[in-house]
Amino acid sequence: MTYAVGFLLQSGLLFAADTRTNAGVDHVSTFRKLTIFEKPGNRVMTLLSAGNLAISQAVIEELREGIRTKRKENLLNVRSLFAAARLVGAAVRKVHDTDAVALRQQDTDFNVSFIFGGQIKGEQHRLFQVYSAGNFIEASPDSPYFQIGENKYGKPIIDRVIRHQSSLMEAAKCTLLSFDSTMRSNVSVGLPINLMAYRKNSYKRGFEVEVDAMNDYYRSVGGYWSDALRFAFQEMPNPDWKL
Amino acid sequence: MTYAVGFLLQSGLLFAADTRTNAGVDHVSTFRKLTIFEKPGNRVMTLLSAGNLAISQAVIEELREGIRTKRKENLLNVRSLFAAARLVGAAVRKVHDTDAVALRQQDTDFNVSFIFGGQIKGEQHRLFQVYSAGNFIEASPDSPYFQIGENKYGKPIIDRVIRHQSSLMEAAKCTLLSFDSTMRSNVSVGLPINLMAYRKNSYKRGFEVEVDAMNDYYRSVGGYWSDALRFAFQEMPNPDWKL
Repeated sequence: MTYAVGFLLQSGLLFAADTRTNAGVDHVSTFRKLTIFEKPGNRVMTLLSAGNLAISQAVIEELREGIRTKRKENLLNVRSLFAAARLVGAAVRKVHDTDAVALRQQDTDFNVSFIFGGQIKGEQHRLFQVYSAGNFIEASPDSPYFQIGENKYGKPIIDRVIRHQSSLMEAAKCTLLSFDSTMRSNVSVGLPINLMAYRKNSYKRGFEVEVDAMNDYYRSVGGYWSDALRFAFQEMPNPDWKL
Repeated sequence: MTYAVGFLLQSGLLFAADTRTNAGVDHVSTFRKLTIFEKPGNRVMTLLSAGNLAISQAVIEELREGIRTKRKENLLNVRSLFAAARLVGAAVRKVHDTDAVALRQQDTDFNVSFIFGGQIKGEQHRLFQVYSAGNFIEASPDSPYFQIGENKYGKPIIDRVIRHQSSLMEAAKCTLLSFDSTMRSNVSVGLPINLMAYRKNSYKRGFEVEVDAMNDYYRSVGGYWSDALRFAFQEMPNPDWKL
């Protein structure tokens, strides 16, 4: 499984993904699921992937192939992030055309999804979620984040503390708590976490970090948060119930 | 959908279930999913149900029928809660035998699950989760709660604050927070919540409450908790990252 999240904030974009992949509980490995495409000074795009690793790697390879062979339309020359998201969707469809029948014969779904965001000069920064059918939706100030993969455990904390106006730092902190809640409940989501912040109108990749089990800050977060929640819980008034 | 949770605590058992059922978004109604079987002074059993409402109602009816017709083995005369859980499982299998083929012809899964717990004189209080195949598992001090239905959103808060040693009051408070987190994220889980506490060795139904949208305590809980989390979040130290 995977857990990945992307935020559309007033001040920029924040992306994070875990790195665990598994094909059965006895075949667990680590793959980076955060990919950056950039032309510094002009555009930066980040792609987070979840689902079947063979499919997501094939999609990324197809996008890179478009850039390498200087296709008429590729991620580094399209004019808008919408057009770029359409290229991601087209790459998904191309892989589907190649692989879906064989996968179905093995009773395997064509299961993949992406969070894709960035900024191209002349436009605002934008964030999309691309489905396995190659279609996509765009985030807005009212719905300023997308999650893919194992999204439920880590959703309540995001809903309670993050808004479009939140800072990149707040989104980064919340992201670590969201991953902490998820990893406590689902062992198929695992460290390290790749995190990347993009500051709007910078047109270059921003702060990047790989958070692993040795990361002091991450280690302190889980303990801090559990203590804070237990304290808030103890302080919460009791109902007037005769239990 | 449904969300229901049952706790096995040192001091007793706590059960809660929402009441929303839906067959499509334009067919939403309210049904009680918490059923009590009792012989005061001798035994109390509580059954929480999730899944297809027609199936869970048929299972409950089958259990009641066993009591009404004074079957050799029914919920009010078996000697142990394990034997009682086996009766629940047998009722599930009987309904499966009647309905599963017709359901499959309509592309509908035989989807049902139960949390079942209580105490019979001569035994400790016990808690079980019964699956749609009629088999079941029992809770233990290490894993002191079961959830059925839409369980993920409301799980992190339980994992952080509840242990087997927690009081019934703590479990009740945590249950409301857990439902609050779930209902914020999934509209197919809805008020009112039925909650029942059983104090061990009392052999009678304990405190019961139906928490609806007018319940002052419940209304205050969501706000209190959001404020407490936001405060704890703001107080959380920042990482040493240049975002």
